[in-house]
Amino acid sequence: VNLPDVKGRLEILKIHTKNKPLDPSVDLEVIARQTPGFSGADLANLANEAAILAVRRNKNRITMKEFEDAVDKVLAGPERKSKIISEKEKRIKAYHEAGHALVAHYHPDADPVHRVSIISRGLLGGYTRTVPQEDRSLWTRSQLEAMLAVALGGYTAEEIALGEVSTGSENDLERATDLARKMVVEYGMSPKLGPRIYGKRNGLVFLGKDIVEEKNYSEKAAQEIDEEIKRIIEEAHQRARKILTEHRAKLDRLAEELIRKETLEESEIKAILEASEETSSPTS
Amino acid sequence: VNLPDVKGRLEILKIHTKNKPLDPSVDLEVIARQTPGFSGADLANLANEAAILAVRRNKNRITMKEFEDAVDKVLAGPERKSKIISEKEKRIKAYHEAGHALVAHYHPDADPVHRVSIISRGLLGGYTRTVPQEDRSLWTRSQLEAMLAVALGGYTAEEIALGEVSTGSENDLERATDLARKMVVEYGMSPKLGPRIYGKRNGLVFLGKDIVEEKNYSEKAAQEIDEEIKRIIEEAHQRARKILTEHRAKLDRLAEELIRKETLEESEIKAILEASEETSSPTS
Amino acid sequence: VNLPDVKGRLEILKIHTKNKPLDPSVDLEVIARQTPGFSGADLANLANEAAILAVRRNKNRITMKEFEDAVDKVLAGPERKSKIISEKEKRIKAYHEAGHALVAHYHPDADPVHRVSIISRGLLGGYTRTVPQEDRSLWTRSQLEAMLAVALGGYTAEEIALGEVSTGSENDLERATDLARKMVVEYGMSPKLGPRIYGKRNGLVFLGKDIVEEKNYSEKAAQEIDEEIKRIIEEAHQRARKILTEHRAKLDRLAEELIRKETLEESEIKAILEASEETSSPTS
Amino acid sequence: VNLPDVKGRLEILKIHTKNKPLDPSVDLEVIARQTPGFSGADLANLANEAAILAVRRNKNRITMKEFEDAVDKVLAGPERKSKIISEKEKRIKAYHEAGHALVAHYHPDADPVHRVSIISRGLLGGYTRTVPQEDRSLWTRSQLEAMLAVALGGYTAEEIALGEVSTGSENDLERATDLARKMVVEYGMSPKLGPRIYGKRNGLVFLGKDIVEEKNYSEKAAQEIDEEIKRIIEEAHQRARKILTEHRAKLDRLAEELIRKETLEESEIKAILEASEETSSPTS
Amino acid sequence: VNLPDVKGRLEILKIHTKNKPLDPSVDLEVIARQTPGFSGADLANLANEAAILAVRRNKNRITMKEFEDAVDKVLAGPERKSKIISEKEKRIKAYHEAGHALVAHYHPDADPVHRVSIISRGLLGGYTRTVPQEDRSLWTRSQLEAMLAVALGGYTAEEIALGEVSTGSENDLERATDLARKMVVEYGMSPKLGPRIYGKRNGLVFLGKDIVEEKNYSEKAAQEIDEEIKRIIEEAHQRARKILTEHRAKLDRLAEELIRKETLEESEIKAILEASEETSSPTS
Amino acid sequence: VNLPDVKGRLEILKIHTKNKPLDPSVDLEVIARQTPGFSGADLANLANEAAILAVRRNKNRITMKEFEDAVDKVLAGPERKSKIISEKEKRIKAYHEAGHALVAHYHPDADPVHRVSIISRGLLGGYTRTVPQEDRSLWTRSQLEAMLAVALGGYTAEEIALGEVSTGSENDLERATDLARKMVVEYGMSPKLGPRIYGKRNGLVFLGKDIVEEKNYSEKAAQEIDEEIKRIIEEAHQRARKILTEHRAKLDRLAEELIRKETLEESEIKAILEASEETSSPTS
Repeated sequence: VNLPDVKGRLEILKIHTKNKPLDPSVDLEVIARQTPGFSGADLANLANEAAILAVRRNKNRITMKEFEDAVDKVLAGPERKSKIISEKEKRIKAYHEAGHALVAHYHPDADPVHRVSIISRGLLGGYTRTVPQEDRSLWTRSQLEAMLAVALGGYTAEEIALGEVSTGSENDLERATDLARKMVVEYGMSPKLGPRIYGKRNGLVFLGKDIVEEKNYSEKAAQEIDEEIKRIIEEAHQRARKILTEHRAKLDRLAEELIRKETLEESEIKAILEASEETSSPTS
Repeated sequence: VNLPDVKGRLEILKIHTKNKPLDPSVDLEVIARQTPGFSGADLANLANEAAILAVRRNKNRITMKEFEDAVDKVLAGPERKSKIISEKEKRIKAYHEAGHALVAHYHPDADPVHRVSIISRGLLGGYTRTVPQEDRSLWTRSQLEAMLAVALGGYTAEEIALGEVSTGSENDLERATDLARKMVVEYGMSPKLGPRIYGKRNGLVFLGKDIVEEKNYSEKAAQEIDEEIKRIIEEAHQRARKILTEHRAKLDRLAEELIRKETLEESEIKAILEASEETSSPTS
Repeated sequence: VNLPDVKGRLEILKIHTKNKPLDPSVDLEVIARQTPGFSGADLANLANEAAILAVRRNKNRITMKEFEDAVDKVLAGPERKSKIISEKEKRIKAYHEAGHALVAHYHPDADPVHRVSIISRGLLGGYTRTVPQEDRSLWTRSQLEAMLAVALGGYTAEEIALGEVSTGSENDLERATDLARKMVVEYGMSPKLGPRIYGKRNGLVFLGKDIVEEKNYSEKAAQEIDEEIKRIIEEAHQRARKILTEHRAKLDRLAEELIRKETLEESEIKAILEASEETSSPTS
Repeated sequence: VNLPDVKGRLEILKIHTKNKPLDPSVDLEVIARQTPGFSGADLANLANEAAILAVRRNKNRITMKEFEDAVDKVLAGPERKSKIISEKEKRIKAYHEAGHALVAHYHPDADPVHRVSIISRGLLGGYTRTVPQEDRSLWTRSQLEAMLAVALGGYTAEEIALGEVSTGSENDLERATDLARKMVVEYGMSPKLGPRIYGKRNGLVFLGKDIVEEKNYSEKAAQEIDEEIKRIIEEAHQRARKILTEHRAKLDRLAEELIRKETLEESEIKAILEASEETSSPTS
Repeated sequence: VNLPDVKGRLEILKIHTKNKPLDPSVDLEVIARQTPGFSGADLANLANEAAILAVRRNKNRITMKEFEDAVDKVLAGPERKSKIISEKEKRIKAYHEAGHALVAHYHPDADPVHRVSIISRGLLGGYTRTVPQEDRSLWTRSQLEAMLAVALGGYTAEEIALGEVSTGSENDLERATDLARKMVVEYGMSPKLGPRIYGKRNGLVFLGKDIVEEKNYSEKAAQEIDEEIKRIIEEAHQRARKILTEHRAKLDRLAEELIRKETLEESEIKAILEASEETSSPTS
Repeated sequence: VNLPDVKGRLEILKIHTKNKPLDPSVDLEVIARQTPGFSGADLANLANEAAILAVRRNKNRITMKEFEDAVDKVLAGPERKSKIISEKEKRIKAYHEAGHALVAHYHPDADPVHRVSIISRGLLGGYTRTVPQEDRSLWTRSQLEAMLAVALGGYTAEEIALGEVSTGSENDLERATDLARKMVVEYGMSPKLGPRIYGKRNGLVFLGKDIVEEKNYSEKAAQEIDEEIKRIIEEAHQRARKILTEHRAKLDRLAEELIRKETLEESEIKAILEASEETSSPTS
C-alpha cells in the first residue's frame, strides 16, 4: 500500500544499479517516472532483469533499451516470441492493440502510449503500455472515463475493422466492468445513485481468498446499478468508436506496422499517428 | 496454460519416438498438427500408447494407424468395444454422431471432421473428432457459433431422423450452454448486453473445487442473459437443422455406414459426403 | 460407472456359482438378463444370497426360485414379513402396487412387470419389479415418459380406488419429480426451454455429500422450469389415470390377489391381466 | 427406522419384566399396544421407570398405574409438579389441553384420547396423549387432517374460551405447520400443486445437524406452497372451531375438572364427554 | 431452561445466606418474588454481591437495600457512576427512562415499576426495572402488547418531550422488533397470517453460534410478515404515545426528579405518579 | 467498550507524563478533552509519541505542539510528507478538506474544527479533525444529520469548485452510507419505517471476521430502506451544498491557504472563516 513515489523510486534504482555497468545513455530518472506503482522489490527485480538482458545480448553495458524491456517483463511477464500464430490471429491482435493505442493517443484525458506489441507476454496475447505523466493517488471522473475508453479500444477496433469481435477482449471487458462498477458503487460518480456506496467490502477471507461482498441493498437498487454500469460502459464505447472512426486510416496504418514489426516504440507510434492524415475516410 | 505450439509438439514427439521403431508411413508433423491443446505429458502418453497398440496388433513397426488411434485414446479414453448394445441404441448413436459430422462438414466456419465412431470410449457413447487447421489462441464470434451448431448436430439429427431425442445429448447440451453463456457474460458478444462481463469469476476454491461464481448483477440482467443464451442456442439449432435437412439423404447414408462399420475415417466420410447428392429429398 | 453388460454378468455369475450345487432348472442367462445395473460385487452377493436361501429352505440344490428371491433382496433389502399391518394398510399397499404393475403392463413404452409384492422390504412398504428387455445406456423421451407414468401408477390407483392418497407415495413422487426435472434441465426435452441445460452440476462435495447445484439462471427461467415439470408430471398422471380407469376391474382383481397371496410372479400377473375383461366397469 | 411392531414390543417387554414383581393387574399386551414408535431401548427404559415408581410409592408389586405413568415419562420427560403456577396460567393450560382432548374425541379420523394433564413435563407445560388403535406405517390424507385439527385444538380452545391466545401454542403450531408443509411438498396431497415433491431433502449434515433443504423451485411455486399450507391449516382450524363450539359446555366441564384434578384418565374423560349434553349452548 | 420457581428461589437464597449476618429488615421472600428467571448460580451471585456491598458501605449487617442493589447488579452489570455526562444527555436519559416507567405504570397489562435510574450500568445508559406479580411460563397476547408499549416508552418520550429521538433506543427497538416478530412467526398472534409458524428454528450451531434461521416461505409471506410486525409495533407506539400524552405533566415531573436524584424507588415513583394531576396539559 | 471519560483520561495522562519534562504551556486537561474515545493504551501511546517528537525536534521539553501532533498520529497514522503530489492533486485535496472544515464550521449541530491538513497520513490523503465539546454516549438525530453533512463536505466541495468528483471521497461515502443506514435500520429515525430494527446483528464470527448480517425482512422493506437512506443522504448533501455555496469565497480562501501551508490550526481556520465576507458571490 505504501509504495515509493518517484523520488523514492529513483533512490532505490540508484542503490540497485550501483555496482552495475550502466551505459551513459541510461537516465534513471526517466525509468523512475515510468514505474509508478512499483514496489522496492519490483525495482530490484527490474535492475536485475536489465542486467540479465544485457548479458544475453552480449553487451558490456546496460543500455536504456534493456531497462525499457525489463519494465515490460516485470509488468506483464516474459515474451513468448516462439509461439506460432496464424496470419488471421496476428491481424486480430494487431487491430486490437492498435485500437488501445489510438484511443489512448487521441483521448484528451488518457495517458500517452509508450509501447505497443503483439508479441505474447505471460498470459497476455498482446500489450499496450501507457505511462502517466505524474504519480497519482487520486483519479477524477474524467480520468476514469478515459481509462474506460482506452480499455474498450481493442474490442471496438475489432468491431470496426474486422466486423466481429473475438475472445481476446475478455480481460479488457473484465477491467472495464470492474472500473465502471466502482464508479457507481464506491466513488459516488453516478448522479442517479448519488453519493453513497453499495455493498459491504470489509469482507471475509476464507482459506486465503475473498468471499463475496455482502449485497446490502434491494433488487431495485441492483437494477439501477446495472443500468448505470451499462450507461457508463456504453458512453466509453461511443467515445472509443468516435475516435477510431475519425482516425480509421491511422488505425489501419498502425495495425499494418504492428503486423510487420510486432513491437512499436513511442517515437514510432507518434511518427505514424502525427503524419498528415490525407487518406482518412470521411466518417460521422 | 502454457501449452506447446505445433513446432514444440513436433520436437516433443521426436524425443519420445527416438528409440521406437517407426514405420516410414509415419509423419510426425501430421500428428503434431492434429494435437493442439496437448501438453508435453499428453504427447509422451500418445507415443507410448501407439507403441503398445503396435505390440498388441503384432506389428514390428508403429504405423500411422496406431498414432491415430492413440490420439483418440488420449482424448476420450479407451474403447469399450465389448459392450453389447441393442440395434435401437446403435441407430440412435449412428444418427447422433452423423449429425455432428455433417454439420461440421458443411458449416463454413467449423473445423473439418477427422473421424467418427459409435464405439463407446471412456464415458462417451460415441465420438466425433474434428481437427483445426491451425493452432488457436483466439476465437471469433463466427467460430464460436460454428462450434455451437456442431455441438447441437447430434441432438438435431435425432429430432429429424428419429422424431424424438434421447438422453444421449446431455454432454453436448452442457458444452453448448456453457459456450453460449461465455459468449454473453465473458466475451461481450451479445449486442443487447454490451461490452461488459457479468459475475465475478476469480472464485473461491474450497476443498479443491470451485465454489459458485458471485452473481453481482440484478435479476433483470439474469433474465436478459437467459434470453440471449436462448437466442444464441436457438440460432445454432436452426443452422444445424438447416444443414441436416438440406443434406438429409447424406445423413441417412452416413448413419447407415456407421451402423455397418462403427468407425469412419476422414477419407471415408468425404467419400460419402462428396458423392453426388441425387437422392436428397427437397426440404426448405 | 463402468458396469458389466449382459455377457459380462453371465461370466461373473458363472464364476461365483462354479462350486455351488445348481438345480438343472437354473438358467444363469435369464438371471444375467434380469440384472442390468448390477456390479460385479452385486452379482457375487446375489449368488451368495441364493445359496443361503437354499440352505434356509432345506434344499440340496439352489433352484431358480432362490435366485429370483436373491435378486429382490439385493435390489430392495431383506423382507420384513413379521411386521404386523392392519387390513386397512394392506388394502392401500395392494392397490398401490397393483397400480404400478397395471400401468407398466399396459403402457406401450414401459418395461414388463416381473414381480409384485406387498411385503415390506428394507425401507419399502411394497415392491414392483420390472425388467427391461435389453441393457440400456440411452433412454428416449418416450421411455422416460413411460417410466413417469409407471412411477405415478401407485399414487393414481390410490386416488381412483380409495378416494384419497396416503403418505406411501413419497418415494415415487420424489423419483418422478427428479426424472421430470432432468428431462427439462439436463436432456433438453422441453420444447419450451430448448436444447440447453439449467444449473451447474459439477458440484462441490463437502464432507462427503453433494452441496446444492448452482442456480445459474433467472427467476423467470425457474418459473418456466416449474411449469414444464408440472406439465410433464401431469401428462404422466393422465396416462396412468387413463390406463387404470380403462382397466378398473383388473386393478381390483390384482389388488385382491395381492391381499390374498402378498407376492405375485410374472405368470400370475399375466394370468390375471390377460383374462377376458368381461366385468370391467365402463369409465371415461 | 426399523422399530419393533406390537408383537415385537410385547416380547421385549416380557424380557425386561421377567425378574420384576408384576401385579396380576398388569397386562403387557395393553402396554405394547400403547407404545407404537418405541424402540427396544425405550421399552427397557419404560420397564425400569415403572419399577422405580413402584419403589418410590412403597409398593411390593408394579401395578398398571406405574406402567401408565412410566409411558408418559418416557414420552415427555419427568413431571415438574412442584412448579408453582398462577391460577390464570392454570386456567389457560386447562382450556388448552381440554381443547386438544375434545377435538381428538369428536373428530372421526383422530385417535382416541388416553390421558390429559396440566402438570408440566420436561419442556411441556401440559400434555394430551392419544393412542392409535393399531400400528401404522402409512397415513391417509384424512388421518393427517385429523392430526392437524387435534394439534390446533389447544390454540382454538384458548381463542374461544379465553378470547385471546397465549405463547403456549408454539410447539403445536410448529408441528401443524411442519405437517401441513409435508402434505404439500412431500406427499402430493395438494390438488393445486399436484403429485410432485418440492425441495431436495437428501440433505447435507454439517457438524451433526441438517443444513437447510435445497430450494429447487421458483418464487411463484414458493408462494403457491404458502397458499396451500395456509388453506390446509385454516381448514383444520375451522374443523377444530366447529367441534369446540358445538361442544362448548363439555369444554368448560373438562377444563374445570383439569383445574381440579390436574390429570384425567381415559375413563374420566369419557365420563365427562359422554354425559348428556343438556347445557350445551346452541352454536352454528 | 429448568429454572427454580419462587419456592425454589427462596430455598436457594436461604442456603446462600445461612452464614451471613442479615439485618432483621431483610425479607428473603420479597427477594425471591423479585427474581423470576434467576438460576441457582444467579442467586448465589446475588447473595455474594449483597454481602460485598454491605462491607463496602461499612455495615455490620446486610440490609434490604444491599439486596435490592445486588439484584440490579446481577441483572444489568455494575454501576458506572463516575462517568461524566453532559446536562443534555442527562435530560435525554431522564425522559427516556421516565417514559418506560410511565407507560409501565399506566398500562393495564404491564408489570409494576420497581426502580428507575439514569446511572449507567454495564452496557446500559439507564435502567427501568419492572417486577411481575407472579412467576410466568406463558404470556398472553395482551401481556406481550403491554411489554411492547413499555419497551417503546423511552423512544416515545424522547419524541414527545424532546422533539427528536436519539441513538439511545437501539436496544429497546431490537427487543420490540424481536418480540413483535415472534408474535407473528412463532405464536400465531397475527389473524392475517394465522395459526402457523414461519421459518425453521431448530437451527444449526456453527462454531458455537446460531446460524441464520431457514427462510422456508415465499417473498410474499415475508412481506406480509413485515406488514404485521409494522402494525403491531405501530399499535404499541400509539398506546405508549396516548399514555405519555395524557400524563405529560407527570412525565416532566418524573424526568425532573430523575435528573435530581438519578435513581427512584417504587415508593418515590408512586408518590409522583399518584399525586393529583392538576397541571397536566390538555392533549388529544 | 468501557472507555475512560474525560476525568479518567486526565488521570491516565498524568500517570504517563509523570517522569517526562513538560513545558509549562502544556495543559493536560485540554488534551483530555480532545481525546474522547481514546483507551488507556491510546493515551499511553499518545504521551510516548509526544516525547519522541520533542526529541526529534531537539526540544528539552515537550510542548503543547508535540501533544497536538501526537493526537493526529494516534488517530490517523504517521505523516507521509515526503510523498510528491502533483499540483492538480494538491488542489483537489485542498478543496476536499476545506469542504469538510467549512461545513463543520457553519453547521449548527456539528462539532468545531480543530485542524485541517492535506498532508497524507497513514492511509488517508488528507485529514480534518473536529473535537466535540463534551464526551458523548448518545447522539440525537440532529447531531447525526450534521455528521452526515460534514462527511459529504469534501465530495460536495469537489463538485462545486472543480466541476467533478474524484476517487478521494470513497472513505467519506462509506462512513456516510453506514451512518445513514444505521439511522434507518438501528435507531428508528425513519418515520416511514418506524421504531423497529431491520436485520439481525448478533452475528456470527467466522475465522475472526463478522459474517454478513441476517436479512430477516422482505425485498419490499429492503427497497424502502434504500429509499430512506437515499433521502437522508440527499438531504445531507443539500445542506452541505447550501453551506458551501453561501460561503463560496471562504471555501476558495481556505483551499488556497491549505495549498500554501498544508496544515491549518483552529485559530488560523477561524481567522479565515470569520473575516468579513465581502467577496462572497451571491448564490441561492
